[in-house]
Parts: sequence; C-alpha cells; structure tokens
Amino acid sequence: MKPALKPARLPEPLYRLCAYFLPRLMFLRSEHGAQIHWGDIAIALQDFPAELQDLGSAEFWQEWMQRWSRLGHDYVTLANESCSVAGASSAWRSAAACFHWAEFMYFSDPVWKTQMRQRVKECFMRSLEHTELSLCSGEFMHGEVRIPYYLVLPAQKVVSETAWPCVILSNGLDSVTEVEVFAFAEQFLARGIAVFMFDGPGQGINVGCNPIDMQFETVVQQIITRLKTEPAVDTDRLGFFGISFGGYLALRVARYLGQQFQAVVNLSGGPRLSPYVTLPRRLKEDFRYAFMGGDAIEMQNIFDQLALTVQEQSTTDILSIHGALDDIFPVAALEDMHQALGDQHPLKVYPSEAHVCLNYINQYSIEVADWLAQKLAKSVG
Amino acid sequence: MKPALKPARLPEPLYRLCAYFLPRLMFLRSEHGAQIHWGDIAIALQDFPAELQDLGSAEFWQEWMQRWSRLGHDYVTLANESCSVAGASSAWRSAAACFHWAEFMYFSDPVWKTQMRQRVKECFMRSLEHTELSLCSGEFMHGEVRIPYYLVLPAQKVVSETAWPCVILSNGLDSVTEVEVFAFAEQFLARGIAVFMFDGPGQGINVGCNPIDMQFETVVQQIITRLKTEPAVDTDRLGFFGISFGGYLALRVARYLGQQFQAVVNLSGGPRLSPYVTLPRRLKEDFRYAFMGGDAIEMQNIFDQLALTVQEQSTTDILSIHGALDDIFPVAALEDMHQALGDQHPLKVYPSEAHVCLNYINQYSIEVADWLAQKLAKSVG
Repeated sequence: MKPALKPARLPEPLYRLCAYFLPRLMFLRSEHGAQIHWGDIAIALQDFPAELQDLGSAEFWQEWMQRWSRLGHDYVTLANESCSVAGASSAWRSAAACFHWAEFMYFSDPVWKTQMRQRVKECFMRSLEHTELSLCSGEFMHGEVRIPYYLVLPAQKVVSETAWPCVILSNGLDSVTEVEVFAFAEQFLARGIAVFMFDGPGQGINVGCNPIDMQFETVVQQIITRLKTEPAVDTDRLGFFGISFGGYLALRVARYLGQQFQAVVNLSGGPRLSPYVTLPRRLKEDFRYAFMGGDAIEMQNIFDQLALTVQEQSTTDILSIHGALDDIFPVAALEDMHQALGDQHPLKVYPSEAHVCLNYINQYSIEVADWLAQKLAKSVG
Repeated sequence: MKPALKPARLPEPLYRLCAYFLPRLMFLRSEHGAQIHWGDIAIALQDFPAELQDLGSAEFWQEWMQRWSRLGHDYVTLANESCSVAGASSAWRSAAACFHWAEFMYFSDPVWKTQMRQRVKECFMRSLEHTELSLCSGEFMHGEVRIPYYLVLPAQKVVSETAWPCVILSNGLDSVTEVEVFAFAEQFLARGIAVFMFDGPGQGINVGCNPIDMQFETVVQQIITRLKTEPAVDTDRLGFFGISFGGYLALRVARYLGQQFQAVVNLSGGPRLSPYVTLPRRLKEDFRYAFMGGDAIEMQNIFDQLALTVQEQSTTDILSIHGALDDIFPVAALEDMHQALGDQHPLKVYPSEAHVCLNYINQYSIEVADWLAQKLAKSVG
C-alpha cells in the first residue's frame, strides 16, 4: 500500500539537526539577492532518508545537494516557461538560491562544486535582466587568480551625489556573493552607499580552485586602486564589511589598510580562531577546503599564522557584532580588543547567540548599516 | 543553577504542531509587504511553555499573541531608534508583520484584536513613508461599514500606459491586506498591473466588528464604480484575485459580476465548504468570528446559504489553484466546475498539498500572475 499523501514538511529529526542553521538558509529579506522560501525547504527535504541523518557525514551532504539541485532545476524550468520578465526574474532568483544551498556544505567533488557556483552566478545574472539596478560586473586578476566583482550604485533619488561613498563587502568561507553578501549590500544601497562585492582568492567561484590569500589585504588594496578610477565612487568615503571569516578579513583590513577606510564592520569574525581540532567535523572540512590545506597540523599552522595580536590603537573605527556562544571565533579576544580600543571599537555581544548571531540578522543588519552610513556621511564642516 | 544559554529556536514539540503553517508565517517574498524573518519565529517562540502546546486551546493563542506582540514592540523601538529612512522602514515592516502574527488566530478579546490590526496598519504606513511607491489610501462606506483601501499603480517604466489594467484583491478570513494580500499584489504590480486592496465587511480591520457580507459581490460592484472614476485605471481590463475564503468570494464575483472582469483567480476557495462540524476547532472559531455567527446550527445555515451551484457557463475565465488534501473547500466541487466549464476554468491541483498549497506559494504565484497578466494585456486587434 502506498503511504497516504501529505503536505511536504521538513522531517522532525532533520529539523532537530538543522534548526541551528535554518536562519542561515532563510537569511535576510532581499529584493534582488537570491533567496529561498520556506516551502522550498519543505519540498527539498521532505522524506529525507532517516539513515543519512548525520551532519558530519559526506553522505548527508550528498543527498542534501541532490535534493536542492533538483529543486533548482525545477525553478529553471519555471523561469524558462514564464511569459513575463517579473516571473522569470523571480524564478531565476529562486534557482540561484537553491543551487547555492545545494553546494554550500558539499566538498566531495570540487569540479561539481565549482560548476554549481557557476550556475548560481548564471541564474543570478538572468534574474537581473531588465531590472533597473545600476550594476556593472567585471573581473580583474590578482596574481594568477581571476577575481569577479559587482559594483552597484544606489538608485538616483532626490539628492543626487556626484560620487557615492562605497562599501567593499567580503564573503566568508562558505557564502556566495549572490546570496548572503548581496542581501547585506542592499542595506547599504538603500542608504545611498555604493557597494563593491567580489569573489576573492578561495572565495565564491574561486573556492577549492585556489586558497584564501593569507595576506588578503593585498586583494583589498587592489580593489581600492580600481575604485579610485571610478568617477562614481568617492574613495575618501570607503567602508569595509565582512561576515564570518570575512569579519576576520575585515579586522585585517582595519589593521593593514585602516587609513584608507572611514569605518569597518566585523560581523562575527575575531582576531583568533578556536584551535583547529576543536572545530566540528564539517567546519574542519570547510576550512581545509577554502585554504586547500592538509592535515590538522598544517591547518593549525595556518590558523597560527592568521592570528592577529591586539593593538592599542586603530587607524579606523571598527564595529563588531558577536555571539557570546561563538565557538569558531571566541568572543574573549574581541572583548580584549574592545578593552584596548574603547570607542574606536564598539562591540555588540548577543549573550545567547552563536556564530553570526543569525536569529538577529534582521535587527543587527539595520543597526550595522545605520552605523556605517553615519560614518560615511559627508562631514558637515 | 540557571540553565546554560543557547541560541533561540522553535522548540521541537512546537515545530511538530506548527510545521503545517510555517509556510504561512514565512509567506511570499515581498518588497513592501510586511514580512518576518526566520529568526523572529525562533525569538518569539523559544521556551514556549510545554503545558500550553494545544493549538485548539485559547491559552495557546493567548501566549502566542503575547510573544509576537512583544517582538513587535521591540521592532517599534528599533524603528524609532534608527537614524535612516531605510532602517526605520525595515523595522516598521517587521513590526507590522509581528503584530499580524500576534493576532491572526487570536479571538478571545475582539477589542484587543481590532487594536492590534490597527497597529498593523499604522506600522505598515510608517514603513512606506518616503518610499517611491505610487500608493493612495482612502476609505468608502458600504452601508454602515467603513471600507479602507489601497490603490497602487505600477512604477512608470519605459512604456507608460495611459491607464493601467487593474486587479482587485480580496482577503480571506484571517489574512490582512498589509501582509498576505500585499505580497500577492506586488506580483501584479511587477507585471504592469494596478492593484486595488481593501478590507471588506468582516475582513481586515473590520473582522469581529461586522460580519462578512453574504452578498459580497455588492461590495465589489461598489469598488468597480469607484474605479471607473479613476483616470489611471482602465476598467475594461479588470481582474479579481481572492485567496482562501477570498477564493470563494472570487467565485461569487465570477458568477455575479463576471461580465465586468477579464479574468478571476480563485486561490483555494471552492463553491462549497466542508460541513461546519467537521472543521478543526480553531477554524470553527475563525469562521464564527468572521461571520459573527452563533452555534453550529446557525453556522451550518450560513454555510448552506453560501454554497454556489455549478453552472454550465461562465461570463469570465477563472483560474483555480487547489490542494487535493484541502479539508475546508473539498477539491471535488472544483473538479465538477472544471468539468462543466472546461477551458474557461483551468484548474491546477497539487496532489499532496492542503488548503492554499502553501509550500508552493512561490511557484504558483508566478504562474497565477503570468496568467492574469496575459488576460489583462491589451488585445492586439
């Protein structure tokens, strides 16, 4: 006898396992950034095989990948069938998001992962066809590495600037520009700030193809040099924003390039990572994949090299948002930083939140964007 | 000893109870419509008392209401504290959504419910301050009942129409214009169609103050008469869209006013309701509240009066979207209608979905809006 049909739902055991990262999947309300709906989770994950429910196993993420990928293809079909620009755009956006969630924790087949991230980009660009977004995309070389980027200008409102202030946004380890970063970028756009987004070495489309640059500030310096040639951007008013591992990169940028930035936002990065061996299994793989590293000893060496010492002064203001329960970047080092830098380093700690404080993403994204917008406003005198 | 802090999450037993309406809470991606984030659910419902977990009890919804209301107030604070238009707008939108979810299944105190729905409206209007949306709001009298409405015109794009086609959208029993209806309305706006949204008798702000009109088409006729005085609206190209009980109202509109509409969308309404006594407890109360009815016999009388017979012809095209497992409007009567009307009544049935097919809201909203847009396009000859 076939089991009775019932509406799709995320199975309870899987809910138990995944509850902590559901706010990551649903993320932040976005107009153009790729995003899923709740029903997508229910459809993709219904009847997920009980025997595979171990987040630490490659089999789990293989099954997960296939399911999200299938749903992504359904959206591609819907996009191709839609007779309207708005309908196609909406379906492409959903497809892009599904392909991202398919690959975000999948590390078994690097070729496939790269293809999937390429597909995210393609679907995203299709979703933007015929929009009025002032977006230009391009790429530049950082050494041997191709760095794709998007520069988006705010919509022309009543008061038009001759040149916009600009925020450079960095991915973390497993995010993509078209989903997570874009959602944050819109917060700045809405406040009259241009945004520059990019896939650095080991990020976005580059992940698994080349390692994250240990001197990431050299990539950012190159971006600043490029932006200086953009007449629409006022490089005297630059901000930097990084999320998760990108928050750590933001701290590096503050340290090494601080004089070129009005302000820097560190979203849940910190000066020091937890010891490599203490990380959850999947996260170990995430770091190993992004740094193209080897065994635990090599990875710990990398972690040691990454560590930033606390300084007594900063050449730019830094806002940090952190969860007290963060087990990737322990909060203590940020508290030390706050102690040392005082008003130059406002630190908002959510006592009951973990890495990236995702339950509060809507609330703090407002506060963060407001803070940065104030720092980038034209000074009156 | 205090329990260890951990990130907010929807407790598992509550997830089990609420899973079927999570896609209702998360609803449809919307630019201006009020909407929550996943973290809001986790924050509002964390540590929900185990002893109250009975969806059929008033105590459950009392607790639920208080929690969402508290979160709504947090967003009001955030809105007032934000130093940017974009930040305030975003926080007001979240506040409006929280206040709606606070009251949507709360029927114990009609005065409070009305106040809460008033607050939804206020927060929503605050969220629209300084937006470029071409929205005008107003009200008219239907007999003794005050009917508030919003008329929104599409953004002026390259090809500007002299007068826009227009879709009139109807609420169901427990939705509000500012949340669910607005999200659908944006789909039409994005396709160059004006939208007219309203709180009819027994709907939105009127629920519990006056009953749903048994001849609801008289309200719609009045709206058409108003729209004829709007130079921006082309009343030769009108559509009607109703969701849930509003879908039933759409069928009434097709029946009694069909000649005035190019096309009608019935989203999960049907010609006949299930017997009153077979409805789940909370839904009984929902109907009783909206019709201001009495006991089960009186309610069944109302249901009997509402029933529409199947006709052999229709004066307008009707698209119905329905879940085969719908236990409020059984699908069989729609299949009969489809049998009788053929091509005039395309019927899309999701075999594994229940009322309003909420897991597929993103997918079918694209198809529905595309269908209606084609029906309202200027004919070439």
